[in-house]
Amino acid sequence: MITTDILIIGAGPTGLFTVFEAGLLKMRCHLIDALPQAGGQCSEIYPKKPIYDIPAYPEILAGDLTLKLMEQIKQFEPGFTLGERAETIEKQADETFVVTTNKGTKHHAKTVAIAGGLGSFEPRKPPILNISDFEDKGVEYIIRDPELYRNKKVVISGGGDSALDWAIFLTDVAAEVTLIHRRNEFRGALDSVDKVQELKDAGKIIMITPAEVKGILGTDKVTGVAVIRDGGEEFTIVTDHFIPLFGLSPKLGPIANWGLEIEKNAIKVNNALDYQTNIPGIYAIGDVNTYPGKLKLILCGFHEATLMCQSVYKRIFPDKKYVMKYTTVGGVDGFDGTRKEAPKAVVKKIE
Amino acid sequence: MITTDILIIGAGPTGLFTVFEAGLLKMRCHLIDALPQAGGQCSEIYPKKPIYDIPAYPEILAGDLTLKLMEQIKQFEPGFTLGERAETIEKQADETFVVTTNKGTKHHAKTVAIAGGLGSFEPRKPPILNISDFEDKGVEYIIRDPELYRNKKVVISGGGDSALDWAIFLTDVAAEVTLIHRRNEFRGALDSVDKVQELKDAGKIIMITPAEVKGILGTDKVTGVAVIRDGGEEFTIVTDHFIPLFGLSPKLGPIANWGLEIEKNAIKVNNALDYQTNIPGIYAIGDVNTYPGKLKLILCGFHEATLMCQSVYKRIFPDKKYVMKYTTVGGVDGFDGTRKEAPKAVVKKIE
Ligand SMILES: Cc1cc2nc3c(=O)[nH]c(=O)nc-3n(C[C@H](O)[C@H](O)[C@H](O)COP(=O)(O)OP(=O)(O)OC[C@H]3O[C@@H](n4cnc5c(N)ncnc54)[C@H](O)[C@@H]3O)c2cc1C
Ligand SMILES: Cc1cc2nc3c(=O)[nH]c(=O)nc-3n(C[C@H](O)[C@H](O)[C@H](O)COP(=O)(O)OP(=O)(O)OC[C@H]3O[C@@H](n4cnc5c(N)ncnc54)[C@H](O)[C@@H]3O)c2cc1C
Repeated sequence: MITTDILIIGAGPTGLFTVFEAGLLKMRCHLIDALPQAGGQCSEIYPKKPIYDIPAYPEILAGDLTLKLMEQIKQFEPGFTLGERAETIEKQADETFVVTTNKGTKHHAKTVAIAGGLGSFEPRKPPILNISDFEDKGVEYIIRDPELYRNKKVVISGGGDSALDWAIFLTDVAAEVTLIHRRNEFRGALDSVDKVQELKDAGKIIMITPAEVKGILGTDKVTGVAVIRDGGEEFTIVTDHFIPLFGLSPKLGPIANWGLEIEKNAIKVNNALDYQTNIPGIYAIGDVNTYPGKLKLILCGFHEATLMCQSVYKRIFPDKKYVMKYTTVGGVDGFDGTRKEAPKAVVKKIE
Repeated sequence: MITTDILIIGAGPTGLFTVFEAGLLKMRCHLIDALPQAGGQCSEIYPKKPIYDIPAYPEILAGDLTLKLMEQIKQFEPGFTLGERAETIEKQADETFVVTTNKGTKHHAKTVAIAGGLGSFEPRKPPILNISDFEDKGVEYIIRDPELYRNKKVVISGGGDSALDWAIFLTDVAAEVTLIHRRNEFRGALDSVDKVQELKDAGKIIMITPAEVKGILGTDKVTGVAVIRDGGEEFTIVTDHFIPLFGLSPKLGPIANWGLEIEKNAIKVNNALDYQTNIPGIYAIGDVNTYPGKLKLILCGFHEATLMCQSVYKRIFPDKKYVMKYTTVGGVDGFDGTRKEAPKAVVKKIE
């Protein structure tokens, strides 16, 4: 059982920054995310695109925003359960919570902060019969660890940035990379499309277009795929892995059944105070919540996380009196023993 | 008469970021500040100190935060009335406002956003009889333009960072720099104290400590100051300028008389929605406002400014329907004709 002060569901920008604000108040955090990496929409949907409205960043790539947040919270040693979806929640007699994921991992926390954005990112699956029989047996919708493909044959399917970028990346890892797409045209960064063209010309990527994967071959694991060309021609390819990269779409999913007040696919919170939901001890911050005037912006999630942490502190330490200190004045003491602090002014004689 | 959509009182981080959010909504801003420069507390009190809780900045100097915000809002061409204090406000028959400064500058705006922080920064004046007779006639409490001192004799009084840093700076500009302080010990960055010691040893700064300026000589402008040493010895120094740098302290000041609901020296706002005050059309954001759960943090001011701009938009354009677009998706069109936008994805054939 993983234990923590604040269990954060969702490792997007809001969830990540919560770790910092909680840390200033000496509370520890653990994050659960369905994705294999932190960053939420920023890393899953548009890591290489610039954002212009992060305060004091005239421009920052979404992927860099995630890196900066990870660097900022490092001192507070957050725990991560990645690649798992928070499925159920049980309130304990002592007002604490146990949250269990789809893989059975249990987390025990004094408070739960739902920073689930538009929901848990779930892959769009191609309509192939029995594909679910091969999941994690050669079929992967998300690439978690490229080393899995070392010296293996892989077939990637898809026509967007993920398909292009992973095809490029895996040419250095896999024994053979085949890219199948139902059109001749790909949609992505110009760089990526051109690079794939180059690798195809060099014989490092086998391209099959326009075509679709129609079936999966194998008994207890993938041994090949059945392909059909636009014209109707059918054939099979021997492969160890089939990786359909058709994008991920967010689904509020299991959280919708936790007894929380939901409005317009978002969780209603008490804006005036602390972003707490109708269940005391469960908060909702960032894109996942709604209140009058709500804006689904990253900078708003930061503010909500900060106000929430004050309320959580009072809940966890009802007897302690907290006096806010500016980071500039009080410094920042990490759980890892490091300390950041402003250079002190000296009082010194001039003679 | 200066005219604008949103007149912002206070050019601290909150006021500055407002220009960006307003600009995204095609509304123009003008800022008034009592200080000669933008940045509020960040530039006046701790420009060289690091802040650790600006989201996605593991560390940023307060002065650099101001520079980054200025860079971010440049596209939206904000106007500035600096070195003047907003003194009076009059609501017009058409629900617009006229705000007049202590120097008589008039501003006409559709909406007023008070981002006045802890108040207008006012200098702490030394207790010298008749000092007010010499203000702007050789006595300056704030250095607005160092060129004023080119080849002049200056006497600086004070023992903190401002006194040290300006004494250092002016050795390159003024004909003669004298630094007077009532103690032998100075309080400031180690670098600055050491530099002043060095300049004193080199004969470039004349130090008189422990001593105090007791009187000002001159008829229609400063010609000298009367000094008294700790031991009682009295003498006069010939000088063109006397610059007492005893720090600035913020005073809510005139705003307190504008008929706004005040609580704990701050302006009460309607948190739930848009940070509007009890007077429709006047908003209060950043350190200057208060509501249940309020935190006086920079990141909170950014959020408040953003929500406020949505409300101002509805007030100014009651008939337009605004659909929020992410900056990443819609780009940013400046009033100066520049455009920022994410590189577009291409749709391209691979053959
Ligand atoms: C193309 C695009 C451009 C954008 N541009 C901007 C912009 O310019 N400025 C701006 O401010 N915003 C922009 N946004 C919006 C911004 O990305 C979101 O506001 C932000 O990501 C919200 O952060 P969050 O942490 O609240 O949620 P998210 O980033 O959505 O992260 C939520 C995370 O929670 C996880 N999760 C949810 N439920 C579960 C569960 N049950 N179990 C496990 N994990 C779960 C999800 O997998 C996800 O990773 C843009 C969004 C897109 C798509
Ligand atoms: C030493 C120190 C360390 C700090 N450290 C941190 C930190 O680590 N993190 C953090 O988030 N915050 C920190 N703060 C607080 C932070 O600086 C403030 O929250 C922030 O500056 C508030 O911004 P603002 O724009 O609302 O107001 P301010 O920065 O106070 O700016 C308000 C401006 O309005 C002007 N003004 C007011 N009334 C009038 C008037 N009538 N006419 C003309 N001008 C007027 C003032 O002159 C001032 O320039 C710190 C503050 C100090 C002093």
